[in-house]
Amino acid sequence: MRKRRISQPVHIGSVQVGGDAPIVVQSMTKTDTRDVRSTVNQIKELQDLGCEIIRVAVPDQQAADAILQIKKKISIPLIADIHFDYRLALAAMDNGVDGLRLNPGNIRNPDHIKKIVIVARNRSIPIRIGVNFGSLPQDKRGKLPTVSYMVKLAMDQVRLLESLDFNLIKIALKAFDVPTTVAAYRSIARRTSYPLHIGITEAGLPVTGMIRSSVGIGILLYDGIGDTIRVSLSSHPRDEVFAAYEILKSLNLREHGPVLVSCPSCGRSETDILGLAQTVSEYLQDIKKPIKVAVMGCVVNGPGEARDADVGIACGKGRGAIFKKGKVVKTVEENQFLQSIIQEISSLP
Amino acid sequence: MRKRRISQPVHIGSVQVGGDAPIVVQSMTKTDTRDVRSTVNQIKELQDLGCEIIRVAVPDQQAADAILQIKKKISIPLIADIHFDYRLALAAMDNGVDGLRLNPGNIRNPDHIKKIVIVARNRSIPIRIGVNFGSLPQDKRGKLPTVSYMVKLAMDQVRLLESLDFNLIKIALKAFDVPTTVAAYRSIARRTSYPLHIGITEAGLPVTGMIRSSVGIGILLYDGIGDTIRVSLSSHPRDEVFAAYEILKSLNLREHGPVLVSCPSCGRSETDILGLAQTVSEYLQDIKKPIKVAVMGCVVNGPGEARDADVGIACGKGRGAIFKKGKVVKTVEENQFLQSIIQEISSLP
Repeated sequence: MRKRRISQPVHIGSVQVGGDAPIVVQSMTKTDTRDVRSTVNQIKELQDLGCEIIRVAVPDQQAADAILQIKKKISIPLIADIHFDYRLALAAMDNGVDGLRLNPGNIRNPDHIKKIVIVARNRSIPIRIGVNFGSLPQDKRGKLPTVSYMVKLAMDQVRLLESLDFNLIKIALKAFDVPTTVAAYRSIARRTSYPLHIGITEAGLPVTGMIRSSVGIGILLYDGIGDTIRVSLSSHPRDEVFAAYEILKSLNLREHGPVLVSCPSCGRSETDILGLAQTVSEYLQDIKKPIKVAVMGCVVNGPGEARDADVGIACGKGRGAIFKKGKVVKTVEENQFLQSIIQEISSLP
Repeated sequence: MRKRRISQPVHIGSVQVGGDAPIVVQSMTKTDTRDVRSTVNQIKELQDLGCEIIRVAVPDQQAADAILQIKKKISIPLIADIHFDYRLALAAMDNGVDGLRLNPGNIRNPDHIKKIVIVARNRSIPIRIGVNFGSLPQDKRGKLPTVSYMVKLAMDQVRLLESLDFNLIKIALKAFDVPTTVAAYRSIARRTSYPLHIGITEAGLPVTGMIRSSVGIGILLYDGIGDTIRVSLSSHPRDEVFAAYEILKSLNLREHGPVLVSCPSCGRSETDILGLAQTVSEYLQDIKKPIKVAVMGCVVNGPGEARDADVGIACGKGRGAIFKKGKVVKTVEENQFLQSIIQEISSLP
């Protein structure tokens, strides 16, 4: 795994993004931002699940106004997502937002950008330059390939901000296509030291979208690229936060509750290993400790994986060996598999 | 994306693995292999979903005997998964199996390996050397780190097979830990030109296991490594085949039915985009054509993504623009969104 790219950190409210900060998990509300109560409720639910920064769409003045009330009621940093109208960015900042996301594809007048930047600079509000494949302006593209064009748009905006003495910058370059997205991030990672917000955009419905996002975000993280991630799914944002942590956990980049190792089962299994794994998984949903639990079906890989976990079981015919921290602590009958595992998990510090 | 590693192909029955063959999707049955009817039914279901090679556990002589009947009733190549007892490998070959998977962690007598190899060579039956973290023999490990030890075990077995004039070899080196698995495959990829079977072992229950597998397999494929994949999940093997194709599709390595681009929705959306995406997704389940469909919620990224799809919709307030092959073909009212999309999809060749 490549060493993480060194980026120049920014702070979204109290949360550091980049530098040596953990890779930050963020999401976006799907409520109508003008509906303060629903938006705040959704943000609180996401915060409980581990969401560390939240973004809201600001499509009009009423939404910008709602930020004032939303900010009072939440405790994680808030980013305003702005398109087309620079005045909404100004209003969002007036109302206390902690960060802005601007799309160089659609706020294209440098004077408008300048007005935003002057306020952001005075208040130390970071700006994310968020380029999306779906909103690339076609008129200025010329003959550039997609990746080069995405990088050029972002770098043009970076230089504009820098020329205004502003460097509280994050960058994102997202597409639905994974190779396009990865190539764009790799290119920009070599050109700047700003933190990178990574993700695969419009990835789709939960399961297919999670798989696509995991492939794309996983490739980037393994390559040392990425300071904050958002998984974009057509579903409740709780699925986005869940998937983000699972991706990070799979590369040992964050701890977030338990990890379950469980065997796929096969014609060698002599117990209902899938049912046991499912039940243990349900039990683990209420556990916050970052423990590793292994549910294994036979003597081939069972003992090795069970030994490597904090608590494990390697099942044989009618009996199973319970492992704790690398040692067999007891052997139990099939009707005691579940309770023995739970008992050992409960006894962990 | 790195160019695919050039491997020396082998043939499992009629299916080529490695060389310039497409990356092959395989799975493993979870039935009792001795139960021929259930095993055959599961194989047929998996074949319908696109599974190209199937593996069955052969834990005893009865299971080895069952291969004779199973082979008569299926049309995709069959691999026997053998542990501990070399005689089961001989019996499986006698009964017509197309490939063997051996674990050097547990068939450790070179004379036993030799007996298997002589038969496999005479009948041109490829052997996969499948090393698993969970079954590493601890006694011979010495002071080697895990990755080096996994690679050494595989290479020792490769050299043994080569010394017996056998080269119909595939290799797998799987662990639950993604960085360990990736490092092991990268190392072996530099040392041999045999095709690689890739996967993350014991990845867990469907959603977390799919995410972990997507990260690990995605990193390897992006790096040009991998000739056949198996996603190991604690669930019905149909989920394994589904996830394998989604991973391959996300890197444009295989086509397999439709791809749905759909926006995550946000406070900018003025229609029930999540519901529409879900309904379109259900409709697409019966479509076999490898088409790209985009369901987009607003004017920011909507037109760009919709234009890039075979059929797309970019929704606004109460109305949506229907795109086909990059052009707006009509604008429809909200109550016609679904039927308009279906109509355009149906009219594709």
